[in-house]
Amino acid sequence: MSTESESAAATHGYIDDKTPYLQRMKRIEGQARGIAKMIDEEKYCIDILTQISALTRAVQGVATGLLDDHLKHCVLDAAKLGDDAALAKIQEATDAINRLVRS
Amino acid sequence: MSTESESAAATHGYIDDKTPYLQRMKRIEGQARGIAKMIDEEKYCIDILTQISALTRAVQGVATGLLDDHLKHCVLDAAKLGDDAALAKIQEATDAINRLVRS
Amino acid sequence: MSTESESAAATHGYIDDKTPYLQRMKRIEGQARGIAKMIDEEKYCIDILTQISALTRAVQGVATGLLDDHLKHCVLDAAKLGDDAALAKIQEATDAINRLVRS
Amino acid sequence: MSTESESAAATHGYIDDKTPYLQRMKRIEGQARGIAKMIDEEKYCIDILTQISALTRAVQGVATGLLDDHLKHCVLDAAKLGDDAALAKIQEATDAINRLVRS
Repeated sequence: MSTESESAAATHGYIDDKTPYLQRMKRIEGQARGIAKMIDEEKYCIDILTQISALTRAVQGVATGLLDDHLKHCVLDAAKLGDDAALAKIQEATDAINRLVRS
Repeated sequence: MSTESESAAATHGYIDDKTPYLQRMKRIEGQARGIAKMIDEEKYCIDILTQISALTRAVQGVATGLLDDHLKHCVLDAAKLGDDAALAKIQEATDAINRLVRS
Repeated sequence: MSTESESAAATHGYIDDKTPYLQRMKRIEGQARGIAKMIDEEKYCIDILTQISALTRAVQGVATGLLDDHLKHCVLDAAKLGDDAALAKIQEATDAINRLVRS
Repeated sequence: MSTESESAAATHGYIDDKTPYLQRMKRIEGQARGIAKMIDEEKYCIDILTQISALTRAVQGVATGLLDDHLKHCVLDAAKLGDDAALAKIQEATDAINRLVRS
């Protein structure tokens, strides 16, 4: 599943500051809970869809933020090791972008 | 905020069976929590993005499901009251679709 | 390929006025041609991507417009024939929405 | 409008081979023309939407392809000039990705 060896997994340090990401994910979790509550209380469908669009945008904001951090850290670091290392990292990033644009 | 009077909010009954939706939202909430954990543990960025794409797809599946229920219930019920009522409901649905396609 | 018999294909009349749609598609065709020219002249990649985003938005605007017309005409007309006819039309619309949200 | 001075515009050479891109844009232009024809002939709305989804996917394929070429050429070349140059290129790429994910 993981694209890297598990031993390296906790040491990427590609995120300048993870606190804002954690806060955003906390808020997204709350949005998901709020939408479940709206469904349970049979709130008006269109109002629920509005909340779902907001959640989707929030999640995509986290994704593009992480991708930016990834390009600015992992890819640049790899570029210092050589073109092949950097190209491999960029290919991974491109695949992730494809999935984001599609999802 | 709400597009309908609050008093009517709990009586839409447009969802045939809300249990599967609640289960899906529960799972989405869990996905959000899992992504937060991955960020906190500084897992590999690309792996996190893969999980974010999965969450986005899951949320959009709920959205299109709700929209389908909305069209099949609210819009058809409104059609029985007359074209004006139905057109108003459809306009709301179209606006929601625009937001979904954009988000 | 077609979801309806070919003989009926020219008589849907679901569009109030097709002139604005034809103008928008003409403009989109021009946008596609402009992007090809930018690629041929090796313009700056980011500028090309900006134009591609504009084309995508324009195309999606046509899609949601057509969908709105479809719901307001085909679905409402079908609703007058009975629930089964309307439900079949709505199912088609939902499938199209799924494809749009995904694409 | 342009993110670079016009004089430099024709010398990027970031695309390994522009022929396949030009062929894809040619096909997309043809798809746009085909959709206009379907609207003019009032083909079934859902069939038109299917073609619009296909065009959208084709356009996004060009976008992610160009982005990949951009990262592999412009960003890597900039990385050799120094971190600041590379970071500026990546920021532009991130902004373009945001627009793509949103559109």
